[in-house]
Amino acid sequence: MKKAVVLLSGGMDSVTLLAIAKQQGYHCHALSFRYGQRHSSELIAAERIAIQSEVDHKIIDLDLSRFGGSALTDENIDVPITPSEGIPLTYVPARNMVFLSIALAWAEVLAAKHLFIGVNAVDYSGYPDCRPEFIRAFEATANLATKAGVTGEAFEVCTPLINLSKADIINKGHELGVDYAQTVTCYQADPEGKACRVCDACLLRIKGFEVAGHIDTTRYR
Amino acid sequence: MKKAVVLLSGGMDSVTLLAIAKQQGYHCHALSFRYGQRHSSELIAAERIAIQSEVDHKIIDLDLSRFGGSALTDENIDVPITPSEGIPLTYVPARNMVFLSIALAWAEVLAAKHLFIGVNAVDYSGYPDCRPEFIRAFEATANLATKAGVTGEAFEVCTPLINLSKADIINKGHELGVDYAQTVTCYQADPEGKACRVCDACLLRIKGFEVAGHIDTTRYR
Repeated sequence: MKKAVVLLSGGMDSVTLLAIAKQQGYHCHALSFRYGQRHSSELIAAERIAIQSEVDHKIIDLDLSRFGGSALTDENIDVPITPSEGIPLTYVPARNMVFLSIALAWAEVLAAKHLFIGVNAVDYSGYPDCRPEFIRAFEATANLATKAGVTGEAFEVCTPLINLSKADIINKGHELGVDYAQTVTCYQADPEGKACRVCDACLLRIKGFEVAGHIDTTRYR
Repeated sequence: MKKAVVLLSGGMDSVTLLAIAKQQGYHCHALSFRYGQRHSSELIAAERIAIQSEVDHKIIDLDLSRFGGSALTDENIDVPITPSEGIPLTYVPARNMVFLSIALAWAEVLAAKHLFIGVNAVDYSGYPDCRPEFIRAFEATANLATKAGVTGEAFEVCTPLINLSKADIINKGHELGVDYAQTVTCYQADPEGKACRVCDACLLRIKGFEVAGHIDTTRYR
């Protein structure tokens, strides 16, 4: 059985991603990060989903709030609730590069050749590290950076959500039996995991469910 | 003054690297990792050297022993003391990719455009992530992964040691006043920082000092 490392934040995209990787026949190892984000409810969601999905799961501690520089990792920067021009304040410097690199480290030890990441370049916030050109460059670098990439089969970064709309993702998840009530999408969920309705992540989710014609079972404040 | 993030392990190469970056006029921010390595004496050395060099310094916790897979991060794998064929057991999966990615995150927050890493492709252990082709690929990826890379001046990964022999590095360090007695190179230094003399890192260091014609002031067991 092919092995994969799946980045699992606990939000709706990554949970759909895990369901897709499982459906494609991968033996999945889910990876989450306690990176100094504003709340831990998404990690609790990730843990619950990994258990329900019967996949191996690690939460790695890496405190990016030591650097700050983002509304998600710096308490002095508020999460914006109005649309911003360009790349928003919720962008976390180099986050996907860091997360994928650590996923690569785990994959090399596991002898897994596939990394799954739920990036999306359609209904997204304009983050540079969600674009296909970043993913392809990462993959090329991974194959130069590692013993397994240099001496064996190449690593592949799988992004099955990259060209889907939010509504497409939700429809796909429903087909695969994803329980979206378990997921936490909001940038500033409260300690019980209730969402704010007003941040960019909530707005994209709400619109996605409307377009898909499904009921959003997330708990809102 | 140009800013740089400098990866500082506390070993002889990275300490020479910091001296070179300072000589080149960079305002340096040194970055070390408590990554599950076998001993903390190199981190104590890094801290001492950062203080003496009067540079900002962060030690980031990221426990790569959660994955294992290397003699440096897995207690069940002994540090080899005889030369091995190919890439040795001291290779830590994706370590330079992970460390550079985290350095990139800090650099983006600092508005630094230069990352310094003490990789060397002459007197080295054959690690894939010490080669120029990896460094160039990382650089290209960094400029796609980040807001600062996409919208501003490109990031550059500076590797002033990459084509130097160990003896050249030592001679350069002496010119710049580096105190090598402060550095810890050994893969399995004891709690006092005393080196083993027999691991690959010690052997390369000892030979380098012999060729350079300098006394090695490291404390050996």
